[in-house]
Amino acid sequence: MTAINVIELRRDLHQHPELGLTEFRTASIVVQTLQNLGYRVEYGANTMDAKYSLGVPPKAVLENAKQRAIRDGADPAIVEKMDGGLTGVVATLQGKQPGPTIGFRFDMDALPIEESTNDTHLPVSSGFRSSYEGNMHACAHDGHTAIGLKLAEVLSDGNFSGTVKMFFQPSEEGLNGAYPMVKKGVADDVDKMFCLHLGMGVPLGEVVGGLEGFLAMTRLQVEFRGVPSHAGASPEEGRNALLGAATALLNIHAISRFGTADTRVNVGILQGGTAANIIPYHAKMLVEMRSEVAEVNLELRRRVEQIIASSADMHGLEYDITVVGESTTMKCDDELIDIVLEEAKEVEGFQTFTRRGSAGGSEDATYFTRRVQELGGLATYILVGSPIPAPHHNEKFDIDERSLILAVNLFTRIARRVLR
Amino acid sequence: MTAINVIELRRDLHQHPELGLTEFRTASIVVQTLQNLGYRVEYGANTMDAKYSLGVPPKAVLENAKQRAIRDGADPAIVEKMDGGLTGVVATLQGKQPGPTIGFRFDMDALPIEESTNDTHLPVSSGFRSSYEGNMHACAHDGHTAIGLKLAEVLSDGNFSGTVKMFFQPSEEGLNGAYPMVKKGVADDVDKMFCLHLGMGVPLGEVVGGLEGFLAMTRLQVEFRGVPSHAGASPEEGRNALLGAATALLNIHAISRFGTADTRVNVGILQGGTAANIIPYHAKMLVEMRSEVAEVNLELRRRVEQIIASSADMHGLEYDITVVGESTTMKCDDELIDIVLEEAKEVEGFQTFTRRGSAGGSEDATYFTRRVQELGGLATYILVGSPIPAPHHNEKFDIDERSLILAVNLFTRIARRVLR
Amino acid sequence: MTAINVIELRRDLHQHPELGLTEFRTASIVVQTLQNLGYRVEYGANTMDAKYSLGVPPKAVLENAKQRAIRDGADPAIVEKMDGGLTGVVATLQGKQPGPTIGFRFDMDALPIEESTNDTHLPVSSGFRSSYEGNMHACAHDGHTAIGLKLAEVLSDGNFSGTVKMFFQPSEEGLNGAYPMVKKGVADDVDKMFCLHLGMGVPLGEVVGGLEGFLAMTRLQVEFRGVPSHAGASPEEGRNALLGAATALLNIHAISRFGTADTRVNVGILQGGTAANIIPYHAKMLVEMRSEVAEVNLELRRRVEQIIASSADMHGLEYDITVVGESTTMKCDDELIDIVLEEAKEVEGFQTFTRRGSAGGSEDATYFTRRVQELGGLATYILVGSPIPAPHHNEKFDIDERSLILAVNLFTRIARRVLR
Amino acid sequence: MTAINVIELRRDLHQHPELGLTEFRTASIVVQTLQNLGYRVEYGANTMDAKYSLGVPPKAVLENAKQRAIRDGADPAIVEKMDGGLTGVVATLQGKQPGPTIGFRFDMDALPIEESTNDTHLPVSSGFRSSYEGNMHACAHDGHTAIGLKLAEVLSDGNFSGTVKMFFQPSEEGLNGAYPMVKKGVADDVDKMFCLHLGMGVPLGEVVGGLEGFLAMTRLQVEFRGVPSHAGASPEEGRNALLGAATALLNIHAISRFGTADTRVNVGILQGGTAANIIPYHAKMLVEMRSEVAEVNLELRRRVEQIIASSADMHGLEYDITVVGESTTMKCDDELIDIVLEEAKEVEGFQTFTRRGSAGGSEDATYFTRRVQELGGLATYILVGSPIPAPHHNEKFDIDERSLILAVNLFTRIARRVLR
Repeated sequence: MTAINVIELRRDLHQHPELGLTEFRTASIVVQTLQNLGYRVEYGANTMDAKYSLGVPPKAVLENAKQRAIRDGADPAIVEKMDGGLTGVVATLQGKQPGPTIGFRFDMDALPIEESTNDTHLPVSSGFRSSYEGNMHACAHDGHTAIGLKLAEVLSDGNFSGTVKMFFQPSEEGLNGAYPMVKKGVADDVDKMFCLHLGMGVPLGEVVGGLEGFLAMTRLQVEFRGVPSHAGASPEEGRNALLGAATALLNIHAISRFGTADTRVNVGILQGGTAANIIPYHAKMLVEMRSEVAEVNLELRRRVEQIIASSADMHGLEYDITVVGESTTMKCDDELIDIVLEEAKEVEGFQTFTRRGSAGGSEDATYFTRRVQELGGLATYILVGSPIPAPHHNEKFDIDERSLILAVNLFTRIARRVLR
Repeated sequence: MTAINVIELRRDLHQHPELGLTEFRTASIVVQTLQNLGYRVEYGANTMDAKYSLGVPPKAVLENAKQRAIRDGADPAIVEKMDGGLTGVVATLQGKQPGPTIGFRFDMDALPIEESTNDTHLPVSSGFRSSYEGNMHACAHDGHTAIGLKLAEVLSDGNFSGTVKMFFQPSEEGLNGAYPMVKKGVADDVDKMFCLHLGMGVPLGEVVGGLEGFLAMTRLQVEFRGVPSHAGASPEEGRNALLGAATALLNIHAISRFGTADTRVNVGILQGGTAANIIPYHAKMLVEMRSEVAEVNLELRRRVEQIIASSADMHGLEYDITVVGESTTMKCDDELIDIVLEEAKEVEGFQTFTRRGSAGGSEDATYFTRRVQELGGLATYILVGSPIPAPHHNEKFDIDERSLILAVNLFTRIARRVLR
Repeated sequence: MTAINVIELRRDLHQHPELGLTEFRTASIVVQTLQNLGYRVEYGANTMDAKYSLGVPPKAVLENAKQRAIRDGADPAIVEKMDGGLTGVVATLQGKQPGPTIGFRFDMDALPIEESTNDTHLPVSSGFRSSYEGNMHACAHDGHTAIGLKLAEVLSDGNFSGTVKMFFQPSEEGLNGAYPMVKKGVADDVDKMFCLHLGMGVPLGEVVGGLEGFLAMTRLQVEFRGVPSHAGASPEEGRNALLGAATALLNIHAISRFGTADTRVNVGILQGGTAANIIPYHAKMLVEMRSEVAEVNLELRRRVEQIIASSADMHGLEYDITVVGESTTMKCDDELIDIVLEEAKEVEGFQTFTRRGSAGGSEDATYFTRRVQELGGLATYILVGSPIPAPHHNEKFDIDERSLILAVNLFTRIARRVLR
Repeated sequence: MTAINVIELRRDLHQHPELGLTEFRTASIVVQTLQNLGYRVEYGANTMDAKYSLGVPPKAVLENAKQRAIRDGADPAIVEKMDGGLTGVVATLQGKQPGPTIGFRFDMDALPIEESTNDTHLPVSSGFRSSYEGNMHACAHDGHTAIGLKLAEVLSDGNFSGTVKMFFQPSEEGLNGAYPMVKKGVADDVDKMFCLHLGMGVPLGEVVGGLEGFLAMTRLQVEFRGVPSHAGASPEEGRNALLGAATALLNIHAISRFGTADTRVNVGILQGGTAANIIPYHAKMLVEMRSEVAEVNLELRRRVEQIIASSADMHGLEYDITVVGESTTMKCDDELIDIVLEEAKEVEGFQTFTRRGSAGGSEDATYFTRRVQELGGLATYILVGSPIPAPHHNEKFDIDERSLILAVNLFTRIARRVLR
């Protein structure tokens, strides 16, 4: 077996971006690589509790994704065990001496963004642009997964006292990948938990020991049902689901700012209607709300639900609201931040060492870290800087691949230090 | 060859409803039936001028529809000649003596409505509910096509002086089927043109000799393009296409009523956004406007276009507007109304004879009738009553099949009378 | 006493335009003129039942209007009896012989429009522009009242068999002037009722014997009450009445057109909020809906009320809805139309004689005509043509004063004919 | 002359609340009191540069306010010199020895809120509820002014080295009172500037030495002008200003949150339309935007202006936008915070000593402090805690009057310390 080239691996993953809960090819590679390295590997129903899975894609979508993954090299037997979107992977390796358990969490999913075809975009000029049209790794998870596997390779020597446990999580973007893993209990034996992100506007050579400020988040799927009617002959007999949805959309965005906490609302998707001459009698929306304070996020949700109910009433519609994703807030432990910064100072290439930072988005890694902390363990979330030519979630997003090597070296030192 | 059973034929068509410009199975049956009856039959590029075709479905949709049609019995050779949505059929039969040309126009397309599964709905209880899930003959075009073919059978004896010309038109619902046929010149030699509709709230036994009041109609497809951004980290960097679209939708519906003419507006479809956590950067709308006065319809279009332009400006969006369907108004000729009512009085089963009626919807048969009238011919649009358990375009719409026989008998008499 | 110059009188009234229920000066002139002519004159509480008065202006507004009227020549004693907006006047004259009772109804109120100052506008160039800034006779009621008084003068000779009864009605624009008069019973003894309008796009010399098509109308006053809060420090604690009102406004205008009848909706007034830095906690709207079919108007009202209720719920507001004006539809009697057209043919200056016409607006004269018809009498509504340089309710609206004389002559002939 | 009772004085001011730029009675009392105490007092055009005055109320409003002030005891001569809304007062006293100049700034204006009539509200039960119906001191400025005058009295002994300069500022709520004073140069000679607020959710006995986090603010007055038309007869000829305004209102509230800074938007007032049956052709809005970052506030303003322009275009309207108020951000100087906290520790009644706090609202005292700092001086903004039974700007807002005495004592010590 030849050593993993972290950059080549990242580029292969970049070229095959899979959306949340359909990471069949990615997870299959993860499973096989870790098995080959001698780890004990669990996946499918052993790593995710299906009854806590939210927002699982429809059967046809899963089926297509599975076929595509197998076509592009995934192991059919592994893929089959991941059916129903159970694409999480957990790998464990006992060190040569006993000791505590360290956990590392990496995310694997991509985004529904069409990657740029501009040849100033490195994946284009270097030939590893997404081959799955309409999907793109625009948030560095390709890098995260590659780092995780390279780290696994380095640590496969077992030269440490304790246990290394690695979590490869699906659907971070959907915020519905971590929750069913944590509910399955996979993180219950972890003593010290480390999570990772690359990029986020921080320059190469800078490390942030404890990234916090993640926003509590709720995602609601909304369905409006009206009554169809011919738009020319008898429009008044229809009940217009799109009028209800558009009214809700505007008013959701118009929810008051809060004096007590930063908030976000977004109606990310709206789809409704069937034909030009039929009063639209069906509409679906995907709504997201966030706040840095969990209680404020609850109040946002209450207001969104009221707006939806009233918009439906206003237009004589029925409606359903379903939660399809959630995350919470986090607090990094000082003791782990100390470790991160001390070890980073020993890694060539880091020059700037920041204790704490604040993120603007949401992260369901927070379910892992909260669980570990609840059970008396410690946790932190590390940011490794990387220049990005365009913002996260943009069609020209990219990372500086030198950050991959910095991250592998840092995490290796952290593992050896914690399991010393 | 056994005689056509108009009710069985209608039920077969009902069970295989095909959307506008994809009527491959229906048109294939029409072609073969008419050829067997001895008519000269034209179809494909001989009946429709592709450069006047608006709103042709994407290649993949056409391909799927062709495969399905062939699977369900369509002739692959005929289907192939109809590629690109050229599903119009024109059949001609010379009578035993010379004389004028009479034209009959029938429409073949179905609607994107999911048919009711309630067993009080006759197609359910009698086993001919749509087998093409999501599509439905909810506007009686299955009946129209069956009537046309039965009429063709009856007239195939050639016992008349002149020429019978039958037009089987696609995509009346899309209002984009008649226009490319008329532009091809297929109606240029018609002296007297008769069109037909069943139902429309008129009871069994009533006939309306001249149905008018069709609304001039324009359909616009609109595309908004914004800028994606992460909804949590940097929402302000996005340009939100759904906010623009929802603003446009509400304001389009809020366009003033006119004191000078009846009007209609509908945003039949709105689809936008890609994910909950990305500011939606793309949205599409299908907008329809109508008026009983052609100039007012133009003014409606001007206002809709202004609203779209301003909504885009408001939210920093780019946009495109494309016309995808159009129809005009009509005026029925007294001489033909006289003929219709006189002949109807000779058909057993008609008791009520109404000269003129006013429809609320739009019809692109108006392109046929206007063309015939422009060239000095006469035209009318006949309504044959039929009880309907639910409005047109409703999932429980149905017709009383006795009206099929009444219509065949009436049209036969009209043909023999005009070509006497 | 010198004879009334109908043009001078009209110009005086034009210069002193008074809004609905504040026509203190106008009504005072009407009372005094009619008393001088020998009519029995009733006004104040004798002509209007206050408990059916809707939308009476606040005390301060009434008080100001009364002061202004007195300042400009109104009789203080008469004005005082009209307090509370009871500005209707009814005058009766018995002819020399007994006979039936003929009724004539004229309206007196002006509009809250600022009259043009452009010197192409006749009232400007001829020096009789409104001296009550912000108010204007922009719907010809100044002409109607002048015609009524001149007609009264001509008929004061008593040379007829029966009774002449003249109704000078306030607040036609508010549609709240006729109802309390009719409820008082003032029209109960009328056998034949004639109403009048000038202008409406019909040319000089044309008369329409029966103007119909008035729309049933309802006016609702809406109040939203929220919660104030500081817009910078704690906006989330407010409940924003203007967000509720704006949502209602857009959705009211977006109510579906009806296939069954022509409809209108208008939010004529919206006022809310108190300061830039306070979440607006109060808003008021005046909403109007109309239809040519009374049942459709009821359904419009139901939808408006639902939209208001849902907009309030959506934003945590309380609300009240009050009816402040109403009118109904009308049907003119053939027998009276015959009389109108026959007599018009005898008046020099009329050349075009139209039986029936259709109006687009609403009229509360319909309460007078409906009451007369309910009790077995006959009624019609006459339109006397007059060129208008700008539409009704426009700041440059004006009438051709020759129409005043035509109308007086026509009405005189009608009175003598009916009371022959 | 008897000593000032700060509580009685505050209650008198509370009972006579005057809106921004109409503080004629308040300012008259301030002028007379300070003159009696021996200060050199400037006011009217000597303290405010009229050409930098924004949002001055109309003449009629000023006139009414002046009459009311004179009726309630203001000196007519003083009031006259304040015409045009020049109600700012500046008082100077030289100490017995030379030294630096200390500045104190207090605000005097009230809010357009109707004060509660509930007898649990102290001003009700103790008989000093607002006698100016619809206005209320709901932000403690009555207390600030009373503190300022009592402080002036205490310092009138001249026992200090240097100069005391006191600024009594109008219209803090309008954010248009400080700017014309600062532009007049009144603060140019101040070395150390102290501002004050009571309440703001901080308990009695707590003092915050440096209150920051004020939001940069801009207030825009917007006018939309459309075209009137009769809402029944020809609604399509109107251009509806309220549809434009409601569209703007919803979209202004829907402006994206910013990842880079906290923001606020509010449409505080919307007024439009004239009558139920006229398409509303005029509307006015008062819009406010704020951010903790001045550049973000500029971007908010750009977006608001774009929304207004597009809403106007959408509905065929003309529009104007006028800036009527502005404020900026601030930074408190450490040296003054030290002084405040050290002196507060010597005042009986203070137990909690907080260095810095963050406010959520806006303050135009920031123009005073920025000017002093620009010229090399120092500035801070002190918060003196007081329990409040309801939020600022609420109809039940009140302060604990014990905080008045604490504030006077603290400010006295600060003055003596700085001018030691």
